[in-house]
Amino acid sequence: MSGIVVQTIDRADSAVIDGLAACGVATVHEAQGRTGLLAPYMRPIYPGARIAGSAVTISAPPGDNWMVHVAIEQLKAGDILLLAPTSPCSDGYFGDLLATSAMARFCRGLVVDAGVRDVRDLTAMGFPVWSKAVFAQGTIKASLGSVNVPVVCAGALVHPGDVIVADDDGVCVVPRAAAAAVLEKAQAREAAEEEKRRRLAAGELSLDLYEMRGKLAALGLEYV
Amino acid sequence: MSGIVVQTIDRADSAVIDGLAACGVATVHEAQGRTGLLAPYMRPIYPGARIAGSAVTISAPPGDNWMVHVAIEQLKAGDILLLAPTSPCSDGYFGDLLATSAMARFCRGLVVDAGVRDVRDLTAMGFPVWSKAVFAQGTIKASLGSVNVPVVCAGALVHPGDVIVADDDGVCVVPRAAAAAVLEKAQAREAAEEEKRRRLAAGELSLDLYEMRGKLAALGLEYV
Amino acid sequence: MSGIVVQTIDRADSAVIDGLAACGVATVHEAQGRTGLLAPYMRPIYPGARIAGSAVTISAPPGDNWMVHVAIEQLKAGDILLLAPTSPCSDGYFGDLLATSAMARFCRGLVVDAGVRDVRDLTAMGFPVWSKAVFAQGTIKASLGSVNVPVVCAGALVHPGDVIVADDDGVCVVPRAAAAAVLEKAQAREAAEEEKRRRLAAGELSLDLYEMRGKLAALGLEYV
Amino acid sequence: MSGIVVQTIDRADSAVIDGLAACGVATVHEAQGRTGLLAPYMRPIYPGARIAGSAVTISAPPGDNWMVHVAIEQLKAGDILLLAPTSPCSDGYFGDLLATSAMARFCRGLVVDAGVRDVRDLTAMGFPVWSKAVFAQGTIKASLGSVNVPVVCAGALVHPGDVIVADDDGVCVVPRAAAAAVLEKAQAREAAEEEKRRRLAAGELSLDLYEMRGKLAALGLEYV
Amino acid sequence: MSGIVVQTIDRADSAVIDGLAACGVATVHEAQGRTGLLAPYMRPIYPGARIAGSAVTISAPPGDNWMVHVAIEQLKAGDILLLAPTSPCSDGYFGDLLATSAMARFCRGLVVDAGVRDVRDLTAMGFPVWSKAVFAQGTIKASLGSVNVPVVCAGALVHPGDVIVADDDGVCVVPRAAAAAVLEKAQAREAAEEEKRRRLAAGELSLDLYEMRGKLAALGLEYV
Amino acid sequence: MSGIVVQTIDRADSAVIDGLAACGVATVHEAQGRTGLLAPYMRPIYPGARIAGSAVTISAPPGDNWMVHVAIEQLKAGDILLLAPTSPCSDGYFGDLLATSAMARFCRGLVVDAGVRDVRDLTAMGFPVWSKAVFAQGTIKASLGSVNVPVVCAGALVHPGDVIVADDDGVCVVPRAAAAAVLEKAQAREAAEEEKRRRLAAGELSLDLYEMRGKLAALGLEYV
Repeated sequence: MSGIVVQTIDRADSAVIDGLAACGVATVHEAQGRTGLLAPYMRPIYPGARIAGSAVTISAPPGDNWMVHVAIEQLKAGDILLLAPTSPCSDGYFGDLLATSAMARFCRGLVVDAGVRDVRDLTAMGFPVWSKAVFAQGTIKASLGSVNVPVVCAGALVHPGDVIVADDDGVCVVPRAAAAAVLEKAQAREAAEEEKRRRLAAGELSLDLYEMRGKLAALGLEYV
Repeated sequence: MSGIVVQTIDRADSAVIDGLAACGVATVHEAQGRTGLLAPYMRPIYPGARIAGSAVTISAPPGDNWMVHVAIEQLKAGDILLLAPTSPCSDGYFGDLLATSAMARFCRGLVVDAGVRDVRDLTAMGFPVWSKAVFAQGTIKASLGSVNVPVVCAGALVHPGDVIVADDDGVCVVPRAAAAAVLEKAQAREAAEEEKRRRLAAGELSLDLYEMRGKLAALGLEYV
Repeated sequence: MSGIVVQTIDRADSAVIDGLAACGVATVHEAQGRTGLLAPYMRPIYPGARIAGSAVTISAPPGDNWMVHVAIEQLKAGDILLLAPTSPCSDGYFGDLLATSAMARFCRGLVVDAGVRDVRDLTAMGFPVWSKAVFAQGTIKASLGSVNVPVVCAGALVHPGDVIVADDDGVCVVPRAAAAAVLEKAQAREAAEEEKRRRLAAGELSLDLYEMRGKLAALGLEYV
Repeated sequence: MSGIVVQTIDRADSAVIDGLAACGVATVHEAQGRTGLLAPYMRPIYPGARIAGSAVTISAPPGDNWMVHVAIEQLKAGDILLLAPTSPCSDGYFGDLLATSAMARFCRGLVVDAGVRDVRDLTAMGFPVWSKAVFAQGTIKASLGSVNVPVVCAGALVHPGDVIVADDDGVCVVPRAAAAAVLEKAQAREAAEEEKRRRLAAGELSLDLYEMRGKLAALGLEYV
Repeated sequence: MSGIVVQTIDRADSAVIDGLAACGVATVHEAQGRTGLLAPYMRPIYPGARIAGSAVTISAPPGDNWMVHVAIEQLKAGDILLLAPTSPCSDGYFGDLLATSAMARFCRGLVVDAGVRDVRDLTAMGFPVWSKAVFAQGTIKASLGSVNVPVVCAGALVHPGDVIVADDDGVCVVPRAAAAAVLEKAQAREAAEEEKRRRLAAGELSLDLYEMRGKLAALGLEYV
Repeated sequence: MSGIVVQTIDRADSAVIDGLAACGVATVHEAQGRTGLLAPYMRPIYPGARIAGSAVTISAPPGDNWMVHVAIEQLKAGDILLLAPTSPCSDGYFGDLLATSAMARFCRGLVVDAGVRDVRDLTAMGFPVWSKAVFAQGTIKASLGSVNVPVVCAGALVHPGDVIVADDDGVCVVPRAAAAAVLEKAQAREAAEEEKRRRLAAGELSLDLYEMRGKLAALGLEYV
């Protein structure tokens, strides 16, 4: 089942991808019906990054990062590396040398359901990573995995070419075919929120804004 | 047991509350006999905030944030929202719209034994949150909970109107009735520490400052 | 087995120690054959610190920091305090007063397989700490432990006088006797990486740089 | 705040207590409005035990079981010891000698938000324990705690004299004053379930038994 | 995306399914190239069960088990219920009444990436469950999910009709279309192991049985 | 540092080893001054086993069990295999074939700071294992580790030939040279406990048996 590198994958439209980045994870996640979120243990190595890109997926053996080297050759500008180990692992699959190489290919970041290292350098380089752990323990190069096959990463199914959105709230995957429709809904949501934000900031209560009082009373909410 | 909103709660004196904020969590916790601390997994979404305020408590079903909307109406200037789910949950109960509304009521922050989202926006807005998780997974509005009832939050019992103190060390609850007395002890402690700090910085050893050598020798401490 | 303070320990050469700090944890860990790393749950209280120093070790009972006071007297300039509790504990063994005292002795930082508190002050003071938890819960001074005995800290064996290297990637221990040899290998590794970094930044692939293509093909990697 | 032993506590009626034991944790928890459950990490040391009794509560320092000895003197026949440490701890607070003593006072079991040891002996003696951990690490007797004060144990508030119900599903606390009413509801629930069980066993679907089809259709459930 | 019930799914041949059960999880997992395993936190509620069946999948909101009732109608003899919540949850989705109903439809067991309750009754009934938690906290019936859609359960992708194999080692999913081929490999593996077991029991070393000595020497293994 | 097999190790006297097994983990741990315990997450795969033996240690790469095969050749009757991975790992390093081979050499059990599989077979064979996880995920045979070198296993330092004691309370290591002295203390402890057990069973309170009342009063314990 492993030992495969798929060299040609479809990607979403780059304007759609950038639009999704601008909306951010929480909005995109709502817009696609509350699906696609990776587990909450996936955290950024530094705050403030917000990216989206096409997933170049890596299925790797535990403690073996050989396939990362293989995957970097498959990167196109705007892609995001996404690695899922085949069994739970905290080792540091990725460091500053691999980031240098990935950035030379205009890779936007890494999502890894395992560990990462050299985070001080990665921060200085502005290469964002979302990971399960930060751990200096390195990996070996002994066994094959696969590149650009479907993977389950931190509990979410990711196909190569799916859009990955990542920011301080976590990581969300948008199926490639749905990306444009999800963006539309996300932007509509954002526009609607702008008006709500203005009214809430002015002191209006969401109980009134969303007309919740009647429903709450019907369910029996009691004020004492 | 749920479906109750208590509209009138007693609060501690605002000067006492602000005094407790100035002392910080570690000092307040010591001053009240090492009680009142929430579990160590409660972490701030950004470093540096130090607040105190009166607890407006929320008991909410898992994955359902309807009661947050209800609670915001009960906020007075200087309050802190404190939410405990009725079963363990990591969902993001709170985001930037709710923060906008809470800030319009001069709420000082949120303590939530569950998840929070939109943390980039919350950070930019300067609205501090202490939570168990950061997770973009949203919540629904389907079931009732209660507002301003006693709750157990991250292992600590909190009554509405108790003083919540929160900073980079975590979160501590001070029973409303004890707040003034605890502040007095905390300030005495701080004053005493100032002199100790000066002497320690000058190179004096705490072994001598606290006269520990005799007790250690009596217990059998052996220097080799 | 407890109640011992060893007053004389051997330390590595200070130039070697400083050289190891400059290399950082990930490089040092590789250079000594991927050994010596503390568990990945050991995290810095603020980003950016990178230190190395000689370990003054503390074996302490759970929730009792008396031996920290004893250990501070044993510090020499450039040392690092390293504390291992005798059973799992999250309490805050160390705060700003102890840091003041340790800094008066030119201690470079603390590694504690338990909790720390006053992290806002410690950050302001520039005293770096790597810990399992941040927790305001204080400790007592009731039972003896030992100072400068071998300890297992976060899964790694540490002898007093071993070199501790710590940065954003975690914490690594280098046996004192091996420090000079490890430094040599680490520096060689760094020099080699510099050239690799330049070539990777120029767009060369690691598949070519490390001549991996043949080995991957021999193992059956298939491009489709 | 510590150093108190309350010698006189009220207990619920023993027939009520035994009735709650017969209903079991899941039913009792439902019957009191889904409240009172301790955290899911509280697990029995052997399967099959189902008990209820009046709580004799212990607030103990981390790693110090002195107050267990004090609490045993306060036991009456049918009581359950319930221990909450004042900071997170996995040490083994309780073993076969203490169990021998507790059984001599007709104590029905132990609930401890920390560790327990001698579990092979405890199993052979038929003394049930629900704990966070099994850990041979013993405790010391150096500091005071309190007996029969309110405690938060594994996330639940427990007053001395409250009824503790424990079985393979976990542990639930029933406030003493509510015990009789909760028992009535629990028994009604059990009676109703008996009829449901018979009909479900005969092949009737809960969709029909509970008349759910209409509500599901109204919410838009689609069969394809 | 939710609110769908797929009523017709394809299932693997029942002889193949029973063959996979006989092989067990570890062998099946090896036979299909070390893929398909659910996370190691999925544990059986009692030891000794070994089952296989066709997955009837459930995607359910956190803390809401309404879709379990819907799914039971879709069960055919030999099926296994498999539930994945849409966000992390420990609540008890399933108890003895639902098990009674599922057994009336000849369901073989439940796999749930959340909690289960009434485990004493389920054990007595011989209805096996693999779960993330045992927790008496019940669920509500307020929101829709889906039945027989693809889900990610404890890190593994499961399509309705896939074969689930579960025993004391955990849970493994075999894609329906691959089931017959995987069984063939698993049985071949078992046959080969029988001969190995005989030789190892007789004292032959695996170093010789697998002819490892040469490879180990070539890699530099040194006997001292 | 890896790639070493030490063929000759010293072992403790077999009568001492068997004596330590009879005392059990909790007693042995107390007898050697509360040291030597492995982390509380190390749990037996079935209840009731109580063993002691000489450690044949294995340092293995993550997800690679090749060295287990090498270690089995080094076993003598009465030994215990003890495996520590070089980075955190949950994979199943050991199953029924390896157990068959180990039992042919009269190995008494396995302690593994990682996963184990085939636990149903291992239970049926009566081969006890203490592990961090049960996980069917297998391992590869690609990289060298070492056999009979000092390792840190689940937080405890173990030298080859040290005595391992394991039962339902966990796992404890006794340094070889200290084994006889520890046994003597453990047996003295057991003898003393027998008398205490008798008196406690007769209803005497430990407060009186250990003459604690005076010390408690001196510390200020207050009965109300």
